[in-house]
Amino acid sequence: MQKARLVVLAALVVGVVTLAALPAGAHVSISPSSAPKGGFEVLSFNVPNEAPDANTIKLEVQIPTKYPIASVSTQPMAGWTVEVQKTTLSKPVATDDGDVTEAVSRITWTATAGGLNPGEFDLFTISAGPLPTKPNKLTFKAIQTYSNGDVVNWIQQTVKGAPEPEHPAPTLTLTAAGSDHH
Amino acid sequence: MQKARLVVLAALVVGVVTLAALPAGAHVSISPSSAPKGGFEVLSFNVPNEAPDANTIKLEVQIPTKYPIASVSTQPMAGWTVEVQKTTLSKPVATDDGDVTEAVSRITWTATAGGLNPGEFDLFTISAGPLPTKPNKLTFKAIQTYSNGDVVNWIQQTVKGAPEPEHPAPTLTLTAAGSDHH
Repeated sequence: MQKARLVVLAALVVGVVTLAALPAGAHVSISPSSAPKGGFEVLSFNVPNEAPDANTIKLEVQIPTKYPIASVSTQPMAGWTVEVQKTTLSKPVATDDGDVTEAVSRITWTATAGGLNPGEFDLFTISAGPLPTKPNKLTFKAIQTYSNGDVVNWIQQTVKGAPEPEHPAPTLTLTAAGSDHH
Repeated sequence: MQKARLVVLAALVVGVVTLAALPAGAHVSISPSSAPKGGFEVLSFNVPNEAPDANTIKLEVQIPTKYPIASVSTQPMAGWTVEVQKTTLSKPVATDDGDVTEAVSRITWTATAGGLNPGEFDLFTISAGPLPTKPNKLTFKAIQTYSNGDVVNWIQQTVKGAPEPEHPAPTLTLTAAGSDHH
């Protein structure tokens, strides 16, 4: 009995260790993965098409507004249209162009030429700044829609020390202002 | 006679020194040139068109499979089609999406709109990961085909301490896992 328990425990431990050692699958991620607080940055959402027989036809990214980013713009992308949604801020952000009272809260890219095929990835790129100075991380939830109707919600929080979730939300680490993050 | 010899010798010496001082020609290279072991990375093959009167119409890149990369995808590229060849692995790679039994071994980009003109370059971009954890370098042999039939094999090994070969294979340096490689 005691021995059987030990065997089960050992098996569990081995299982956990094996899980932790497994390489992660391809995820929707942000490149670069870190940027200085207060700076302007070009950020690319790296989106893999993981379906063997469907195309990625839509990507929606939620821009965090708890610590709003006054200026967010999108890079034109052949084969995709982009729709930008703004939200009114409860607390305006002071900038050198005056108070900013609304901020981009959602960006939706929609394919006009078939989207991403199996085996492809693409970069969906924005320019954003000034990045907030307070939090150490910004989470950009992303929703990926496939041509077969499948929707993948990349919205799970990554908890330090815990195993990586299956569909982590893309996260940008904010480094000390002026630090060389590259 | 003696003087003439000296002049010839001097000319030779100057010639050799000049050659040695010449900047290395543009090569097919990988950007970034280094990336952390175990990570996912967007890698661009930077391909210069070095012919004065011919276009680059095809690029073939061999993905190393001795230490296989479970996930390799390609970025769509206007004016080029891409063909991906896979190979069955003798030893499967464990990932959190299950065992991977085959890996991308060759990617061929073929121009559909004329390719690269003289004086142009372009980036042929893939997303790849997890990068292997064992070797300190990965070599991606590349074969560049011109519209006049010329083929340049970028397959030579770079040996530390030795002069750079004429057509080095693009090489990615793998850094310690989690290190800031930028």
